[in-house]
Amino acid sequence: MSKPQSTKPLSGFPEYLPGEQIVFNRMISIIRSNFELYGFAPIETPAVERRQTLTSKGGDEKEIYALQRLHAGEDEDASTEMALHFDLTVPLARYVSMHQNDLTFPFKRYQIQKVWRGERPQAGRYREFYQCDIDIIGREKLSIENDAEMPAVIYKIFREMEIGEFTISMNNRKFITGYLQSLGIKTSDIPEVLHVIDKRDKVGIQQMVTDLSAYLSKEVAQDLGKFLVPQQDPEKALEFFATKGDEINDLVGQGAREILATLRSIKKHGVPAAYIMLDLGIVRGLDYYTGTVYETQLAMYPELGSVCSGGRYENLASTFSNTALPGVGISIGLSRIMTYLFDQGAFETKNSSPSHVLVTTMDDTFIEDYRSITALLRNNFIPTEMYAEEGKFEKQLKYAHSKGIRHVIIMGEDEKKEDKVLIKDLESGQQQQVKISEITTYFLEK
Amino acid sequence: MSKPQSTKPLSGFPEYLPGEQIVFNRMISIIRSNFELYGFAPIETPAVERRQTLTSKGGDEKEIYALQRLHAGEDEDASTEMALHFDLTVPLARYVSMHQNDLTFPFKRYQIQKVWRGERPQAGRYREFYQCDIDIIGREKLSIENDAEMPAVIYKIFREMEIGEFTISMNNRKFITGYLQSLGIKTSDIPEVLHVIDKRDKVGIQQMVTDLSAYLSKEVAQDLGKFLVPQQDPEKALEFFATKGDEINDLVGQGAREILATLRSIKKHGVPAAYIMLDLGIVRGLDYYTGTVYETQLAMYPELGSVCSGGRYENLASTFSNTALPGVGISIGLSRIMTYLFDQGAFETKNSSPSHVLVTTMDDTFIEDYRSITALLRNNFIPTEMYAEEGKFEKQLKYAHSKGIRHVIIMGEDEKKEDKVLIKDLESGQQQQVKISEITTYFLEK
Repeated sequence: MSKPQSTKPLSGFPEYLPGEQIVFNRMISIIRSNFELYGFAPIETPAVERRQTLTSKGGDEKEIYALQRLHAGEDEDASTEMALHFDLTVPLARYVSMHQNDLTFPFKRYQIQKVWRGERPQAGRYREFYQCDIDIIGREKLSIENDAEMPAVIYKIFREMEIGEFTISMNNRKFITGYLQSLGIKTSDIPEVLHVIDKRDKVGIQQMVTDLSAYLSKEVAQDLGKFLVPQQDPEKALEFFATKGDEINDLVGQGAREILATLRSIKKHGVPAAYIMLDLGIVRGLDYYTGTVYETQLAMYPELGSVCSGGRYENLASTFSNTALPGVGISIGLSRIMTYLFDQGAFETKNSSPSHVLVTTMDDTFIEDYRSITALLRNNFIPTEMYAEEGKFEKQLKYAHSKGIRHVIIMGEDEKKEDKVLIKDLESGQQQQVKISEITTYFLEK
Repeated sequence: MSKPQSTKPLSGFPEYLPGEQIVFNRMISIIRSNFELYGFAPIETPAVERRQTLTSKGGDEKEIYALQRLHAGEDEDASTEMALHFDLTVPLARYVSMHQNDLTFPFKRYQIQKVWRGERPQAGRYREFYQCDIDIIGREKLSIENDAEMPAVIYKIFREMEIGEFTISMNNRKFITGYLQSLGIKTSDIPEVLHVIDKRDKVGIQQMVTDLSAYLSKEVAQDLGKFLVPQQDPEKALEFFATKGDEINDLVGQGAREILATLRSIKKHGVPAAYIMLDLGIVRGLDYYTGTVYETQLAMYPELGSVCSGGRYENLASTFSNTALPGVGISIGLSRIMTYLFDQGAFETKNSSPSHVLVTTMDDTFIEDYRSITALLRNNFIPTEMYAEEGKFEKQLKYAHSKGIRHVIIMGEDEKKEDKVLIKDLESGQQQQVKISEITTYFLEK
């Protein structure tokens, strides 16, 4: 017998055991059903796009995996013009531009798919991972009202996921830009200053203030530092800027009004104030977002950074379409969250089967009964399997235990005589004789 | 403004509009829930495997897409040892071998994922498509009872998909091989003869009989031809071979008993006999399947050929593991079915939003009410969106129509005064005033 090939996993490509996959799928299902509850329609784009489609929207070529056939036929070329998408935004831009005439705007779509990045693998960096995106795309314009939808649905999802408390932080790129301008920072220096602010969580506030001093007097930099921290219930301060801000400059006034409108709408959507922060230190994607920006932190796992981010942009698809397509969107980095939480042992993953019931087969004479009982339960939507292998009863029980199947059904000669089965609840240890005609009721009433 | 880039789709990579995607996802959901009802656990493997893993299990290198980064850093190599999986069986073999000690056997898993094949695109051939696989894997051995599970769950799924009538055809490789041997065909010629039989549906029975005459007398070939056709209710004939077959040779006897046991168990699982055929002309993957083989035909679309195939194999993973891992499995080629059926107009795809309700916004003064009503419905699990753009009422109605949203909620001054809304059913055209406190009940009772 030859030596078996290595099955060592490729690093950066997470793979779960069935018990973990069941938990992962439950999370996908929570995300999907809430996206749909909020009126987002599903779409799916191919994993593969033209290389040019991916690079023209500013993808980092080092991170893009191109495709090439392992071998070509004699008169063929193995190379292709194709590559794997590295996010779901570029494909969305291509999709919306391409199908423009078949879509109704505002177009609300969700997309839950894997993406691939040619990263050097390191802890917490994946080369294949799930993103769960929603976007609302307008044609020519899109109401600010939509900016409140993102925190509303994200709140619902993270509550239901039950992975501890969390905070959704918001900022507005107009407001922060206008505010920096009002301090006398040159427009040409703004991107650099935003870059300094973006580093806050990495270097600490003290260092950020020091770095800001390159553009501002020490005192002003220090005052600014105090402003660039998360604030809960910021409406009072914002009201001042919303009404008086235009006297400072247009961006400050307009930005403040956008934040204020969004915060108020979020409240009406039923999100408690404690979950929403204004954080003027949040910047994000410098050349893409133009208004509201979002980040989400998990209280129990701050080391994960933002697990759900996004914002408002002026044009989704300038490379593909001459129509302006403004939008607002947010993305949940599900693989990163889940792989980390599995490593932390944050979930119960002992149930490695969807079955609620195992029909045991202790006596071959009754095999037809075992099959019928199995079919009966399945026809009543109770996930069930029948133990079909040779093996003593103890082995069958062990199988149920090991897969986390809670109930076993037993039928021996005594039960068969009375048209009954014995149902044993492996969790409570209790057992009960039940008529065959009443098995379904027994489980449906559980 | 520069000329926009092409968004022409890459051929061989199906992509759906939202209305189609909603139908596609409903099918995925039917498949998933039935797989789980039958006790199959979900797993997911990375799309990417080691090249060696894929080629060592007999993948056609021309069909495998290898990965290479578009650009590498200075001291790096852009090429990788990785490639995209072309089916879900090779990854399963690697997965089961790798995680052997963490899995409980028999291991029942389902896997619904995309696979990629470097095909020259042509009608009905895809380069990216979904496969929906189930397999039951034993360690060292696996009961024949499991062979009945495949048709049982497939029957349930295709019934629920409502794409017309269908037939699940079965054969047994032992039986057909033993039978051919009994006619005097040399063991070394059997693969060639099976290859001839496999061509039956392409070339027709007459041509197959002619081709068989190269190995048999004309008369025997003609008799064999009559035997190699689909047979409903074949139990009587099989009973003869099951009891007397061993006198012909071991394979005939054992094969007949396996088919018979499987057919009988399928019946007990509640599958009507009309859906199951014995077809001795079904051969499939010559060097892989060793016992039962399955194919599934859609009555309305015979031109699609088999849309769901599989079988029993002696060893899943000889390249990765020294433990024998016998199994039985089946795979639904969902993308091929759905893309074809969409082209045929077989589905109603006008609903391009999951929303049941659109809350219209005819009067800005009531915006907070509109938000609250929207939140109320969502909190009661009724998929809802609020029209947030500027636009007259007619435009809002048109939006609902165009997305296939059935109900619109209207609140003007009159309704507001009485704490009511007007609910209009766009399908029936009827409308009704409903108290705000009773909106949820209205929809939940629908």
